[in-house]
Amino acid sequence: MRAAVVRDRRLVVAEVPLPEPGPGEVLVRTLACGICGSDLHAFKHMDRFAEAYVRADGTPIVDFGRDVIMGHEFCAEIVEHGPGLGRRLTAGTRVCSMPVLLRPPGRQTIGYSNEHPGGYAEYMRLSEALLLEVPNGLPTADAALTEPMAVGLHAVNKAATVAGDRALVVGCGPVGLAVIAALRLRGVHPITALDFSPRRRELALAMGADSVVDPAASPSSAEWRTATVVFECVGVPGVIDQIMRSVIKGTRIVVVGVCMEPDTILPLRGISKELLLQFVLGYDADEFAATLRFIADGSLPTRGLITGTVDLDGVAGAFAELASPERHVKILVEPGRRDA
Amino acid sequence: MRAAVVRDRRLVVAEVPLPEPGPGEVLVRTLACGICGSDLHAFKHMDRFAEAYVRADGTPIVDFGRDVIMGHEFCAEIVEHGPGLGRRLTAGTRVCSMPVLLRPPGRQTIGYSNEHPGGYAEYMRLSEALLLEVPNGLPTADAALTEPMAVGLHAVNKAATVAGDRALVVGCGPVGLAVIAALRLRGVHPITALDFSPRRRELALAMGADSVVDPAASPSSAEWRTATVVFECVGVPGVIDQIMRSVIKGTRIVVVGVCMEPDTILPLRGISKELLLQFVLGYDADEFAATLRFIADGSLPTRGLITGTVDLDGVAGAFAELASPERHVKILVEPGRRDA
Repeated sequence: MRAAVVRDRRLVVAEVPLPEPGPGEVLVRTLACGICGSDLHAFKHMDRFAEAYVRADGTPIVDFGRDVIMGHEFCAEIVEHGPGLGRRLTAGTRVCSMPVLLRPPGRQTIGYSNEHPGGYAEYMRLSEALLLEVPNGLPTADAALTEPMAVGLHAVNKAATVAGDRALVVGCGPVGLAVIAALRLRGVHPITALDFSPRRRELALAMGADSVVDPAASPSSAEWRTATVVFECVGVPGVIDQIMRSVIKGTRIVVVGVCMEPDTILPLRGISKELLLQFVLGYDADEFAATLRFIADGSLPTRGLITGTVDLDGVAGAFAELASPERHVKILVEPGRRDA
Repeated sequence: MRAAVVRDRRLVVAEVPLPEPGPGEVLVRTLACGICGSDLHAFKHMDRFAEAYVRADGTPIVDFGRDVIMGHEFCAEIVEHGPGLGRRLTAGTRVCSMPVLLRPPGRQTIGYSNEHPGGYAEYMRLSEALLLEVPNGLPTADAALTEPMAVGLHAVNKAATVAGDRALVVGCGPVGLAVIAALRLRGVHPITALDFSPRRRELALAMGADSVVDPAASPSSAEWRTATVVFECVGVPGVIDQIMRSVIKGTRIVVVGVCMEPDTILPLRGISKELLLQFVLGYDADEFAATLRFIADGSLPTRGLITGTVDLDGVAGAFAELASPERHVKILVEPGRRDA
């Protein structure tokens, strides 16, 4: 099959072996797979990524010295079942799944793995137990947003918001927008969103923000002094420090943005204001399944999030394009498509 | 009156005006005042301290360009009452108080102030409403430990410990020892304590730790992998990162040590383990009052914490001495005493 492969620190399209579904697994055809900011970060900071994401025994989950097929935000279609299966869902069914494989001795990652191809490939293998059928009528592109929207839902759940919370979302890329949608779903008001990009501020309003702020125009906006919970959705060095400097005593800071470089903070700022920093990652199975339902019934809006689609040959170019916040939010890879 | 004054970035003993108690205030004679690690830090990093501790309007609480009389861990004796007072407690009564003055328009700091002398002076003024009578029979030196022990109680309260928590206390200076005592009071087991100093490890056991670890001998002790809540009681750069590297997924880290310098962390470590960092500071009035009661009834042990006493002329020397963890834990200043 064809796949966009990270090989020798470059993204190349190559012919690779078709994955074989083991017991309890299915072979699926990838219909669409979103490009995640974490993929861009991992591609840029491979060594730091490998150092941070380790198994219980301390070994890295992925070795970028060997081929890696990334892509963990996918919607796919069942092609065939491996041995010994419930066959709960038949071939042709559209499915989503958390990007993990349930194999002895434990969960294995899909998308950051040397063994299991992610969604930047024509085919993947998935665990049947994790498959969620895409509800009838929900477009494949929307279903492929389940994974990033689940990240927002999990972050908001971890924030344990209470009545009276005033939320500030710093950064309105896909993660920040997912957080805004989840805050709105949880009934938090007001929600204020910060981003330098006019287009992203507009999307923030569409996702449910009550107001937006351009930090370039209002560097010391009043929202900093009234927020009770702040979501860091940027993930570059310096942002945590800036938030710690700007907020008031007792503010909870939820770090959702994935900063892969060392970062400097002033602990004294945290101490003098008794701040709380909650780092979050991913979601659990219930949150993932709930997200797909919320997208299907319209509780989590998705309109405007997908700003482009590419075939496998377009992946490398899309990685470069995503650096521009004015042009793109989420680009979907359609591995089965062949542009001329 | 005589006082040890921070003047021109040095500690000097000088004659300064006797403070006048205003309405609702009392004049007290300082019987004993502990030297706090924060005083050492503030003296070393005056500019950073002034930058971090600001009033609601953003102005620093203290200007080290002018005279400052530090000292905020005190036991004192009422000398005379200011105008318009309840006179709940009579002259001669031994009292403790949180180191703040209740004056319009709001609370003012004692010990980090240009207006209100702290406990490194023969006399102070205190707000009558905050005075706590020292229970009969409790030595003055033990009563003077109320403030630092309250810091430990507050940190443990903020950690919101639950049944099944396993605590690790990193650093066994006065703050770490106070945290250990408070953990024991709250029934947390096991409590493991880390310190390079044999003497401090011994004190940690005396304060209620179940076991102690010398990080030099066991750099990757098993306790790191079983702790559910870790208390950072060192306050120097690098320790937070080291804790984030050593703990397992989901660990709560309570930052009690006051690091006044910039510090580097790897946010990715926090994210990949979904860590929580709770910075804490001080205590509230209830915690302060409870601490004095707990010291008086023996629930919070204090034996062995005070390792030296000095007069005002000895303050500068004591600041230098406290750098050595083998010789000292807490040194008390007795401003009324005059050594030959």
